[in-house]
Amino acid sequence: MATWSTKPSLIAAAIVVLGLSCSAGVAHGRRHGRSFVSSYDEPCKEMRLYLHDIIYDYSNSTSNSTSAAATKPTALSTAVADPGYFFGEMVVFNDPVTEGTALPPSLNETAAVRAQGMYFYDRKEAPNAWFSFSLVFNSTAHGHGTINLMGADLMSEKTRDISVVGGTGDFFMTRGIATLSTDEASAGLEYFRLKMDIKLYECYV
Amino acid sequence: MATWSTKPSLIAAAIVVLGLSCSAGVAHGRRHGRSFVSSYDEPCKEMRLYLHDIIYDYSNSTSNSTSAAATKPTALSTAVADPGYFFGEMVVFNDPVTEGTALPPSLNETAAVRAQGMYFYDRKEAPNAWFSFSLVFNSTAHGHGTINLMGADLMSEKTRDISVVGGTGDFFMTRGIATLSTDEASAGLEYFRLKMDIKLYECYV
Amino acid sequence: MATWSTKPSLIAAAIVVLGLSCSAGVAHGRRHGRSFVSSYDEPCKEMRLYLHDIIYDYSNSTSNSTSAAATKPTALSTAVADPGYFFGEMVVFNDPVTEGTALPPSLNETAAVRAQGMYFYDRKEAPNAWFSFSLVFNSTAHGHGTINLMGADLMSEKTRDISVVGGTGDFFMTRGIATLSTDEASAGLEYFRLKMDIKLYECYV
Repeated sequence: MATWSTKPSLIAAAIVVLGLSCSAGVAHGRRHGRSFVSSYDEPCKEMRLYLHDIIYDYSNSTSNSTSAAATKPTALSTAVADPGYFFGEMVVFNDPVTEGTALPPSLNETAAVRAQGMYFYDRKEAPNAWFSFSLVFNSTAHGHGTINLMGADLMSEKTRDISVVGGTGDFFMTRGIATLSTDEASAGLEYFRLKMDIKLYECYV
Repeated sequence: MATWSTKPSLIAAAIVVLGLSCSAGVAHGRRHGRSFVSSYDEPCKEMRLYLHDIIYDYSNSTSNSTSAAATKPTALSTAVADPGYFFGEMVVFNDPVTEGTALPPSLNETAAVRAQGMYFYDRKEAPNAWFSFSLVFNSTAHGHGTINLMGADLMSEKTRDISVVGGTGDFFMTRGIATLSTDEASAGLEYFRLKMDIKLYECYV
Repeated sequence: MATWSTKPSLIAAAIVVLGLSCSAGVAHGRRHGRSFVSSYDEPCKEMRLYLHDIIYDYSNSTSNSTSAAATKPTALSTAVADPGYFFGEMVVFNDPVTEGTALPPSLNETAAVRAQGMYFYDRKEAPNAWFSFSLVFNSTAHGHGTINLMGADLMSEKTRDISVVGGTGDFFMTRGIATLSTDEASAGLEYFRLKMDIKLYECYV
């Protein structure tokens, strides 16, 4: 008993353990084979992926570009300096996502993972962004389905965490954290590559 | 216990069952009467609803229209073909949501459920969208409160799943999946009706 | 057990109790010391905060303003009356958030908490908004990290609930509800102060 009064328990671990210790043969929620795995210390799934964003106005190439500014400079942004980006600039993107850093992606990576969504810049003095998007998987390595993310991309920090708030398909109902860092960027942010270290802490497999 | 090895067990059920099998008289978290019900195989709540979106520029009627493009065509969108929609087009909507497919909604449906939020188009070659919105319920059938959704509307697929990431009121803290399919649409997508099959897997009732 | 039939039990607590009654010596996944605390009746964390939004066009001061309309009036909005705001108006903000109602914030509050994100107006007849944003904490009182929120701001109601759908840092994986109310607003909504009563029901501490 001493163990229990001094150590905290996780839901999933406790349930499995209790099932084992209290009664044999208890099946754990799997008519269709789905069960809940959750630890808040160890991710149930980890992925490192790279997002490549190429704004149209930069490449001026309809085939290469993967995103476009959807809004025009604001009165506020015109009043403050902004080399390439501006306060209130909302960018819609449909970006390739790769396992490695190379772009263009290798042949077996093409279209395997896409990032679809938007970000906008929200700071007067320096670049700072806010993202909401989906990672769309159609991949042998990672499966099929989507994960949905949102959060502040605090660009003055080397790494910044955003939330994985849900998922579908092979990522059914998942939650977790994606740690973003800028792996490469042009001066005006017309091209950038984001490293995304994704850790899922709730999986339903 | 044999029953339990053939029937799915919920997390909550597992807790209850373990409670029953291990110790009598365990009270289950209900000072205000709220308890947690969760299964990842069987939804705790299901709804089929239809969302009707009528873009202003289509109907040109301020009374009929329920949405409006908030952004102008982008340089990128002008460079690629786009019959009615365009890359980077963000549409703000406040759409009626009905039980049946008919529009206008029946009298007892009017304003009972609204979808408030936005979507934008994010593909150069074909229509593909991304949604984030709330379903606002003020309904005898479904209760009062909101559910909040986001995700990729992969329009090239017949059905596509987005995430229910939270809820309020009668939908307090809920999570789940909404499966979207286009039930009807005009050629340029100025009007469309989305069928939404909503399955909530976490309910706090 | 009598204690438990009169006191509310949390999910986590229930599990612990079952653990107590069932089995000794179970190890509980705490390599990094994180555990799950959850009650759907009592918040595990509560905060009252005030968000101050000053649109650029209102103050016309680049230093005072904290937000800017990113979109232009729509055809629909021009067709309906809109004193200060308009249907489809999307506002990007980076707002100071304070403990008290005073603005400018006290010295020790400056930059301690920011709200970064966007809202847009989505109703023809009256102001009604939709928010998605992050609260960014860099605060002695509240810790470091972010919480991510989204939902409908049904402005015709005195209080309205939106969802806390995730968090990072000291708010790792949190979920909850934020109750918004307009504490003060200028006629055209160029300035407003939102009271936010935030209750987190899932904490991982």
